[in-house]
Amino acid sequence: MEHPTHQSPVHSFESDYNNGAHHAVMQALAESNAATSASYGDDEWSQRARQNIRKACQTPEADIFFLVGGTQTNATVIAAMTPLYAGVVAVETGHINVHEAGAVEATGHKVLTLPHHDGKMLAKELEALIERFRNDPSGLHTVHPGMVYITQPTELGTVYTATEIVAIHAVCKRYAIPLYIDGARLGYALASPACDFDLPWMAHHCDAFYIGGTKMGALCGEAVVFPRGNAPRHFFSIIKQHGALLAKSRLAGVQFEALFTDDLYLSIGLEALYYAQQLVVLFAAAGIPTHIASPTNQQFFALTRQQMATIGKHVRFETWEPLDADHTVCRFVTSWATTDADMEALRTALDTL
Amino acid sequence: MEHPTHQSPVHSFESDYNNGAHHAVMQALAESNAATSASYGDDEWSQRARQNIRKACQTPEADIFFLVGGTQTNATVIAAMTPLYAGVVAVETGHINVHEAGAVEATGHKVLTLPHHDGKMLAKELEALIERFRNDPSGLHTVHPGMVYITQPTELGTVYTATEIVAIHAVCKRYAIPLYIDGARLGYALASPACDFDLPWMAHHCDAFYIGGTKMGALCGEAVVFPRGNAPRHFFSIIKQHGALLAKSRLAGVQFEALFTDDLYLSIGLEALYYAQQLVVLFAAAGIPTHIASPTNQQFFALTRQQMATIGKHVRFETWEPLDADHTVCRFVTSWATTDADMEALRTALDTL
Amino acid sequence: MEHPTHQSPVHSFESDYNNGAHHAVMQALAESNAATSASYGDDEWSQRARQNIRKACQTPEADIFFLVGGTQTNATVIAAMTPLYAGVVAVETGHINVHEAGAVEATGHKVLTLPHHDGKMLAKELEALIERFRNDPSGLHTVHPGMVYITQPTELGTVYTATEIVAIHAVCKRYAIPLYIDGARLGYALASPACDFDLPWMAHHCDAFYIGGTKMGALCGEAVVFPRGNAPRHFFSIIKQHGALLAKSRLAGVQFEALFTDDLYLSIGLEALYYAQQLVVLFAAAGIPTHIASPTNQQFFALTRQQMATIGKHVRFETWEPLDADHTVCRFVTSWATTDADMEALRTALDTL
Amino acid sequence: MEHPTHQSPVHSFESDYNNGAHHAVMQALAESNAATSASYGDDEWSQRARQNIRKACQTPEADIFFLVGGTQTNATVIAAMTPLYAGVVAVETGHINVHEAGAVEATGHKVLTLPHHDGKMLAKELEALIERFRNDPSGLHTVHPGMVYITQPTELGTVYTATEIVAIHAVCKRYAIPLYIDGARLGYALASPACDFDLPWMAHHCDAFYIGGTKMGALCGEAVVFPRGNAPRHFFSIIKQHGALLAKSRLAGVQFEALFTDDLYLSIGLEALYYAQQLVVLFAAAGIPTHIASPTNQQFFALTRQQMATIGKHVRFETWEPLDADHTVCRFVTSWATTDADMEALRTALDTL
Repeated sequence: MEHPTHQSPVHSFESDYNNGAHHAVMQALAESNAATSASYGDDEWSQRARQNIRKACQTPEADIFFLVGGTQTNATVIAAMTPLYAGVVAVETGHINVHEAGAVEATGHKVLTLPHHDGKMLAKELEALIERFRNDPSGLHTVHPGMVYITQPTELGTVYTATEIVAIHAVCKRYAIPLYIDGARLGYALASPACDFDLPWMAHHCDAFYIGGTKMGALCGEAVVFPRGNAPRHFFSIIKQHGALLAKSRLAGVQFEALFTDDLYLSIGLEALYYAQQLVVLFAAAGIPTHIASPTNQQFFALTRQQMATIGKHVRFETWEPLDADHTVCRFVTSWATTDADMEALRTALDTL
Repeated sequence: MEHPTHQSPVHSFESDYNNGAHHAVMQALAESNAATSASYGDDEWSQRARQNIRKACQTPEADIFFLVGGTQTNATVIAAMTPLYAGVVAVETGHINVHEAGAVEATGHKVLTLPHHDGKMLAKELEALIERFRNDPSGLHTVHPGMVYITQPTELGTVYTATEIVAIHAVCKRYAIPLYIDGARLGYALASPACDFDLPWMAHHCDAFYIGGTKMGALCGEAVVFPRGNAPRHFFSIIKQHGALLAKSRLAGVQFEALFTDDLYLSIGLEALYYAQQLVVLFAAAGIPTHIASPTNQQFFALTRQQMATIGKHVRFETWEPLDADHTVCRFVTSWATTDADMEALRTALDTL
Repeated sequence: MEHPTHQSPVHSFESDYNNGAHHAVMQALAESNAATSASYGDDEWSQRARQNIRKACQTPEADIFFLVGGTQTNATVIAAMTPLYAGVVAVETGHINVHEAGAVEATGHKVLTLPHHDGKMLAKELEALIERFRNDPSGLHTVHPGMVYITQPTELGTVYTATEIVAIHAVCKRYAIPLYIDGARLGYALASPACDFDLPWMAHHCDAFYIGGTKMGALCGEAVVFPRGNAPRHFFSIIKQHGALLAKSRLAGVQFEALFTDDLYLSIGLEALYYAQQLVVLFAAAGIPTHIASPTNQQFFALTRQQMATIGKHVRFETWEPLDADHTVCRFVTSWATTDADMEALRTALDTL
Repeated sequence: MEHPTHQSPVHSFESDYNNGAHHAVMQALAESNAATSASYGDDEWSQRARQNIRKACQTPEADIFFLVGGTQTNATVIAAMTPLYAGVVAVETGHINVHEAGAVEATGHKVLTLPHHDGKMLAKELEALIERFRNDPSGLHTVHPGMVYITQPTELGTVYTATEIVAIHAVCKRYAIPLYIDGARLGYALASPACDFDLPWMAHHCDAFYIGGTKMGALCGEAVVFPRGNAPRHFFSIIKQHGALLAKSRLAGVQFEALFTDDLYLSIGLEALYYAQQLVVLFAAAGIPTHIASPTNQQFFALTRQQMATIGKHVRFETWEPLDADHTVCRFVTSWATTDADMEALRTALDTL
């Protein structure tokens, strides 16, 4: 778990996208740079990356497309899969509902919200929403539930269990509504002991998902997977229409080939989780319990102003939201780029509290 | 004009985006990779790149944003600058009209077309279109001309002269309609002897433009410039809403800093033009004149089926469109990645005709 | 309060749009029918109707447009007044949020919701939402609040007081966000003793509103008022673009001229309120209190299954939503078309409980 | 052919929508006015009107919906039937391309244009466009042809023959692209000797069409017909979402029931054609031939400035477009509302030339 090239003096727990590429990814970019390639998705790296992902998901028939970023991917997939008259169901804290500047609505579709439970959707609440719609005498005057959107892990760092996914997917199947999983940080869920399923299992329990690259060691790139070869008709043109097609598709292809070679994607997740667990232990030793029980790489702690100031002298982190008069919830994120030196800086900080 | 890392046996004149990054760009990516950074445009490289571009354009007040690709950039800028009730005027061959899968219309705006003249718009035809609209008794039932879109160089490789731009810009100013220039291949125009203006001049004769990176040595990235600090209100949120915001904005920042250091952007253009001119000479020597008089890096020749077959054994190129029963127009593109070896292969090919 | 032509045996309290036109409106349509007219809003009736409405609102500068229906009007006005990057704030029960099939989102804008209080928005909750947005470090990644939508009366039949409107409008002005009032049933609010302001007062305390025709005695038609001549630029073309322009605009003009002649609009409201108050008295006499304290023409009662069955033999009404195991909330609506015979049928029904 | 109630002194040939309702339509509105009704399309008149139209079209399975106006109808039908990645093919002079303020593009779809031939599309040019798209190596980067739009009669008053429709429909079927016919003035085509087919024939040779009411004697209203019960899924909700749903649907229902009782729709067309033919004869007698050979109710003549002034003293008409230095093309339209007195006024005008 060494990052030989990482010599920055800044110790940042702010996010998992404030770093460069994982060194194996950067190496692949550099080594492939001189070659001439096909473009728009036909390059050799994209082709191999797709094969590697199909293998990793055990979905030999999967349609796979590489897009650039998460908001773009969500808007493009949702626009392609949601009927004109329908909206997409998400929990209130869902990324598409709060942090995508209205990208889904800009494609014409409403986000229909359910309450969240530690960031998660409950199958029974989803079913109730659909049943209310169907039983509403004026239902045809309202937005039809036409797609279901969940994130794994959630925006709060929590993870769905297999049982929970099965229950949600069963509701989706009963009502013929596709289930789409946003995996912007998927690797950090797959690496978590709280996540009792693997990539192939997930690929067989939803209708579409994306494997996040940007927050998992790539400079950019998200891999959309339609596991049963069930891509929407002419999805290529839809990607182009939504400004999501890379001319030099090799940029995504090279990176995803690297991430899906020798289990790099999973080991990146494991590395981040290793540090996340250390981090929880360090805070606990300082008498500060986790604010949300997150089993992934995002950890939340309620800190006093003085604690924030002291810790802030040593490491960087994000203020999340005010809790009460005395405490603010703060977020500490680990990633593949976290180092032992970062942890040491944090330990020093907590020791001086 | 050596590319020490370029050892591929393929000699391709197919496009200017079927290669990796210019080696200086790749080197910058590799060297910066270990550093921690701010994100969403606030990283240090993006900040320096913006300063370098402001200097290169002599527009100290310019607002500059980095997006990912050309179609995305066009759709985002046009959606932001065109009133709800209006469309964007372009020539029939304009990229937004033919090769962007309806991305502009997907934002709700019509593309109003004019005939092209070697790929270019005539100021007088633009004025006539606007006057027709204003004099049409049912004009308010039609799509208002609300923005003007031109490309430099054009899709046919031709370039606007300063006189032509001044004339178009004068019409735009007279009717208070913004002029936007798509510079996907801008460097290849700026390097051309046919282009009698430089970057600062252009920046002062339009309302917005983008400096293309993808086709000019970057892996991805386009720099949108609002030269007088005239970015549309909350353009940052509009970029996010259109899925065009890079979380790791350093990816664009590092590349554009490199492109706008030591005049690399211009020298990349010059390098391609050097080869383009050689290429015209080689074809002429083989008795094949250019089909369109293009002064930039795209060259078009009308070839017989047999000529195509013979040349195709040595180098790659694109078929553009059928001309007559015997000839097909073919496109040969040079770029910063073209090598002496590529030219040698072409010379061999032409010798064997 | 006679409706000499109303001889239908059905006694319906289902809605205020299950009838024809008020007889004065129908008479105006019949009498004007033979005349030739200008179209698209320039006809003489539309011109006079606009003058009458300007007078009734005491807004001599007002821009006034006639559209066809409520959902269409809301979507068109909101699309025209909300910036590209922004959404419209409404309470959860707001018509645009629940009963317009996603028409606002279909124009690209998110509906940002606040809790409702008897159907109403609280100024302090609106302010808190805007402040949260402005203080959110990632606010520019979210949907900006760009417009405020309220209904008078609300979907629950309640009315805003002048104090409440002033407070909301003050927040809007402080943050330079326009306030738009949906007056689909405006006349029933203006006629209510609970509404402590009149039409001119309202016209001076918002930025746009519409005077509903469809539910107030017209066959169709809604009058959008921009009280200070502040119509969005080229709103005519925006109406056309949204499919909301009547070729035979006389259809709306004739009806609105009739509604705004001799205070017909207000007397239609008064007539409905007269019956609504009788209705409350009748239910109270039968031991059934109102479920929501509505001071307008929509009244809600929690009924048992048996009560519903018995009453249903005599008059028609709408089931609104289940309340508890034993009770269902039912809606009874009066209108200008309600008759003494309808009330008599209801009295008979309640007597037999 | 008497209009007993038409006593206006204005003699207008400006359009076929500058009048009220046909007297039978107005009478039906007045007579039905007192009855209570269901709403949103379930009223008894709409139900009977649908039955009458099914009978008139000999399409017992047809799905039929009543919308308000033509632009609205086109945008709603096209949005519902065109795939996300596709556009709608029309001739350059097509109403959706020029006179609907970009309503189709506002739903996200491009209008792909073909040249017109007297206002008509040629099947072979349609086929060539589709073939070009399919053979274009970069076709997936362009807008797919996803629907075909024609008008009967055309914007120039000309009519398609059965042979022409069969040819276009054959192309559509071959490529699985739906054919939609805009019948804003359908009755004037059906009444024309140049139109060699009737309503049932047309209903069996396309995938959707609308029967225009507004220009055929109604105050408003267009009837969309999906002849084989092939309405897009949840078209009702799509209508609502596009602001095209009448709460008091009886307004459309009553009018269409009247229009489709006792062949009124066809006789309205015949009446207008009778006057149109007289009009051509009158002009011919004055030495002025038709400018376009239009067999329907729109007639075009090239007039000098002096002729325009003289005729304008007696009757009203529309200037269409400048022809040459001396002549302007002017449009004269007849309708069911044209009277013998109107013709007499025109005769007087022409006599004084």
